[in-house]
Amino acid sequence: MRHKLINQDQEKTWVVVFEPGEEVVSRLQRFCEEQNLSAARFSAIGAFSAATLGYFEWNRKEYEEISVNEQVEVLSMLGDVAEYEGAPKLHVHVVLGKRDGSAWGGHLLEAYVRPTLEVVLTEAPAHLRRCMDSESRLPLINPDA
Amino acid sequence: MRHKLINQDQEKTWVVVFEPGEEVVSRLQRFCEEQNLSAARFSAIGAFSAATLGYFEWNRKEYEEISVNEQVEVLSMLGDVAEYEGAPKLHVHVVLGKRDGSAWGGHLLEAYVRPTLEVVLTEAPAHLRRCMDSESRLPLINPDA
Amino acid sequence: MRHKLINQDQEKTWVVVFEPGEEVVSRLQRFCEEQNLSAARFSAIGAFSAATLGYFEWNRKEYEEISVNEQVEVLSMLGDVAEYEGAPKLHVHVVLGKRDGSAWGGHLLEAYVRPTLEVVLTEAPAHLRRCMDSESRLPLINPDA
Repeated sequence: MRHKLINQDQEKTWVVVFEPGEEVVSRLQRFCEEQNLSAARFSAIGAFSAATLGYFEWNRKEYEEISVNEQVEVLSMLGDVAEYEGAPKLHVHVVLGKRDGSAWGGHLLEAYVRPTLEVVLTEAPAHLRRCMDSESRLPLINPDA
Repeated sequence: MRHKLINQDQEKTWVVVFEPGEEVVSRLQRFCEEQNLSAARFSAIGAFSAATLGYFEWNRKEYEEISVNEQVEVLSMLGDVAEYEGAPKLHVHVVLGKRDGSAWGGHLLEAYVRPTLEVVLTEAPAHLRRCMDSESRLPLINPDA
Repeated sequence: MRHKLINQDQEKTWVVVFEPGEEVVSRLQRFCEEQNLSAARFSAIGAFSAATLGYFEWNRKEYEEISVNEQVEVLSMLGDVAEYEGAPKLHVHVVLGKRDGSAWGGHLLEAYVRPTLEVVLTEAPAHLRRCMDSESRLPLINPDA
């Protein structure tokens, strides 16, 4: 993963480019920790060799896992970063395109890049915080926190 | 719906977070009116308990409605805001993910949030206007207006 | 295609609106050349009357073409612009919605707008370069170049 700061004003914007074989969620988490981000959003396109997606099962309040074991285009990867329990926490959703052009997607749990993933990430001069939501049992952004 | 201004420069950026049960299009419309927006764009991720999508039927020049009556991930919600007939007018498209990971989408007519929708919205220091287009019978952004 | 500069700070942001019948990739390429862009990203929504998508076949290192010969909603169009061999080079991925609400997508090779495509494009005060990648045989963004 290589990155470049492409704008530094009140907001900062980076281009972050992943290498083949890198795992996206853990590596992007590390980048957010290294840069100490607490109010960021990002979008990306590229391709994965494999991914694990999540669908939030409302009755059980758990993510069901969906495995994608083939080369797919990353048609859209959108996400945000806010602080939760003292560290940056990522929230990432993806849309993936298969060989026949069909689109699939979910909450991104894990993904392996091949050959590239081009992320544009912007950090705002603010602090956003996630708080545990008792109904969904998920840490949700609370703009008042 | 709660919101927080996370950057205020020439452009203004808000994080807008919806609560369970809130209807997205009408509530976001109200936010745009309250903030008097006329040149904004936004992106969002989250989840809906139900949604009504539109597909523009070109021959009839009407939206056909597509009902989604199940819990879905909001994989992508992209949109813009421009002025039309004296008020902000939203244009919103979504991609939704079902339990099996299949992706569905359309022009967003109505949607109910569960448990969250995280929107990042940026207003530019400009005025964008929609004008009725006689061929499509839709109010389209006209950069020269 | 008509455009309007909606913010001019360290970064510049345009709204670019396409007309019915215009081809997206070649026309947007021309816009990037006219504006001499080298570090831009964009997102768009709208509709196409037809499109040709690509799926990168990893073994052959070639794009397989997927034809879409019907009116579709552009649910998401995300992309970036970096310099390659002295000119701006676009990279564009789309998610398209058919009449039944099913979503399809891929790398965008060609598309015809009907009735509109609303693009928001931001150029950063930086220079990004693509370099030929020997493994994938694709020109990939190299943040160190």
